[in-house]
Amino acid sequence: MARLVMKFGGTSVATVERIKNVARHVKREVEAGHDVAVVVSAMSGKTNELVSFVREAAPLYDAREYDTVVASGEQVTSGLLALVLNDMGIPARSWQGWQIPLYSDDAHGSARILEVDGAAILAGFEARGEVAVVSGFQGIHKESGRITTLGRGGSDTSAVAIAAGIKASRCDIYTDVDGVYTTDPRIVPRAVRMNKVAFEEMLEMASMGAKVLQVRSVEIAMVHQVPTYVRSSFDDPDNPNPGTLICDEDEIMEHQVITGIAYSKDDTEITLREVADKPGVAASVFMPLAEANINVDMIVQNISEDGKTTDITFTVPAADYDRALDILNRAKTEIGYRALQGAKDVAKVSAIGIGMRSHAGVAAKAFKALSEKGINIRAITTSEIKFSVLIDADYTELAVRTLHSLYGLDRG
Amino acid sequence: MARLVMKFGGTSVATVERIKNVARHVKREVEAGHDVAVVVSAMSGKTNELVSFVREAAPLYDAREYDTVVASGEQVTSGLLALVLNDMGIPARSWQGWQIPLYSDDAHGSARILEVDGAAILAGFEARGEVAVVSGFQGIHKESGRITTLGRGGSDTSAVAIAAGIKASRCDIYTDVDGVYTTDPRIVPRAVRMNKVAFEEMLEMASMGAKVLQVRSVEIAMVHQVPTYVRSSFDDPDNPNPGTLICDEDEIMEHQVITGIAYSKDDTEITLREVADKPGVAASVFMPLAEANINVDMIVQNISEDGKTTDITFTVPAADYDRALDILNRAKTEIGYRALQGAKDVAKVSAIGIGMRSHAGVAAKAFKALSEKGINIRAITTSEIKFSVLIDADYTELAVRTLHSLYGLDRG
Repeated sequence: MARLVMKFGGTSVATVERIKNVARHVKREVEAGHDVAVVVSAMSGKTNELVSFVREAAPLYDAREYDTVVASGEQVTSGLLALVLNDMGIPARSWQGWQIPLYSDDAHGSARILEVDGAAILAGFEARGEVAVVSGFQGIHKESGRITTLGRGGSDTSAVAIAAGIKASRCDIYTDVDGVYTTDPRIVPRAVRMNKVAFEEMLEMASMGAKVLQVRSVEIAMVHQVPTYVRSSFDDPDNPNPGTLICDEDEIMEHQVITGIAYSKDDTEITLREVADKPGVAASVFMPLAEANINVDMIVQNISEDGKTTDITFTVPAADYDRALDILNRAKTEIGYRALQGAKDVAKVSAIGIGMRSHAGVAAKAFKALSEKGINIRAITTSEIKFSVLIDADYTELAVRTLHSLYGLDRG
Repeated sequence: MARLVMKFGGTSVATVERIKNVARHVKREVEAGHDVAVVVSAMSGKTNELVSFVREAAPLYDAREYDTVVASGEQVTSGLLALVLNDMGIPARSWQGWQIPLYSDDAHGSARILEVDGAAILAGFEARGEVAVVSGFQGIHKESGRITTLGRGGSDTSAVAIAAGIKASRCDIYTDVDGVYTTDPRIVPRAVRMNKVAFEEMLEMASMGAKVLQVRSVEIAMVHQVPTYVRSSFDDPDNPNPGTLICDEDEIMEHQVITGIAYSKDDTEITLREVADKPGVAASVFMPLAEANINVDMIVQNISEDGKTTDITFTVPAADYDRALDILNRAKTEIGYRALQGAKDVAKVSAIGIGMRSHAGVAAKAFKALSEKGINIRAITTSEIKFSVLIDADYTELAVRTLHSLYGLDRG
């Protein structure tokens, strides 16, 4: 007998019929003798409807009221799933964020979880063998007593945080895919579903564009050592596939050098030409961007021929592109550069693997393979367990396929 | 400067556009210098949608989860109105039942309000001049911490209870009619909108079928002496009509003998023929009905010619008709009667007025007038300030018009 968290997203609870299917998954685990907490999102489409009401009500909306309106979507789903479970003879009750309570900070609209009090849910397990049906995505700010939401995809984060809060032995994230693949199977049909992947690798994959799990949920799973499965809610409830386990690297016997290839088209490139090559110039470029909360990722700096000026290239999220250009234009005299250039049609392709730590020359091999395919590398970043290259967006699929084959990830 | 509660129902907040219109009504009162709490229902249609989800999820639903699901409708509206007000530069925040808190008992689905803590709302008035936008229809059960709902029309009750809780000097109920009329204007075009009506009279009218206000809200208004206006949300927000004031009878200078004529087609008639006329027979008839929670209203008992048996006639709500017949059929030997008869096509017409107390023969005048029109009276009940007659439903409109003229209520 184990304690278990199961999470179902919006498409898995899109209709009452689908909620009944979710209940069959829950029934399987209850009948296996487990204590179960289920975390649910809003019925798909509902959150968008609520957000559009908010936008119509007030273009520059108060984020606290936004949260009040939008959190109602999960309240409906948690109540409905509890109804279905009770109707099937499985004791269940719904829990809103404020009832648990799941405390967050007051960054309304994208609040961070501070503390999950698992006592009430555990009491329900103990006293009544009761399934806890939890509204994902929402919490409460302790001081103000107001409803908060965790931002898009926040239900994954809720699920893992609740798993940590009730010391669950496992957290199952049910999605519309059946696990984590070595890369996007729409690009590489020979991509392989992994049985296990290390937290650190999953963190990089999520950051690099693999949208199967929210980055913050992986962080929390890693910190609290919650073994987390990604699996499909559309499997037969009586005979589901296990999916992919995200776990501590020690749990994985043999590491491949590269575990997966991720890509993202959400980045844009900015270049400052002929910046004076003197101390403090990098700060003069990046400080104003940091102050505007713009996240700079890859940075490349080349000395120009005369040795007196330098070119600086870096990437920012596509959503911040216009704002970044505007800030740099206004700071032109202060920074002192000749020209400002931007490119939106770029993509970042990343190779991730814990095995990189103990293998030299892994990235160099990639640079060679990409150049042989005629793919120009605009910028490079590396970390202990991943490297990324920035390339023309047109070459994204070719680059992903090239690296996937290069590191022996293609299905046999 | 006064403290004021304004309540808007589902049709008044059916769309974001209409919510903006509600905000203009609120603005008028804020600009007049008042501290305002606004109570809102769910957008019309939403509650029905949520109820149908619940029914699809579980035909025999758990009322606690029903409440969780259905209360989400008001949460959306309160958030949206707060957004619109803030956007107009009027400080506002939403309040859910559990945030106020508005405590109720745990009769989920039709909970009764136990206590409204006005402190937090009053603190918002004081510290920030903040409009309180309150979700109607919902509360919280203190011991279980679960969301409750007050039953259909419960937002009226919320509004008056909150008015009592914050010691408001007035509660304005905005509806789709512009006040309380001497009778239904669809039946009597010469019906008159009253300027004032006493709590006791309104209570009888609401009970007798005038659907403009929930009975429980009138009870609370009367007990806590909250002057309550019924007025239209479709009036020009900058120049609205005052509507009808429901107030203590002392506030009304001169009472007419009869204030209004109400009618109801929701009653049915049941007759037991030749019941033995002995002590305890009434109990044997009405106890089983009471135990089944069936509300018996008018009772008439006639001695039959032989003096040994009696006929008993009474009314029950139409919704309980089949159940009542079934119970009486099963108790036939125990009660001892010859035949059981029922009639569904009956109507109850009532005349209400505090002036009746000091005038004799008011009802007798009515019986004469009705018989002159050929209307047969099947049963009669009277109280201090009203009398009701049960008649064939076909004669309802004729009876209402006859009494409306008889007591001089027709517009001049």
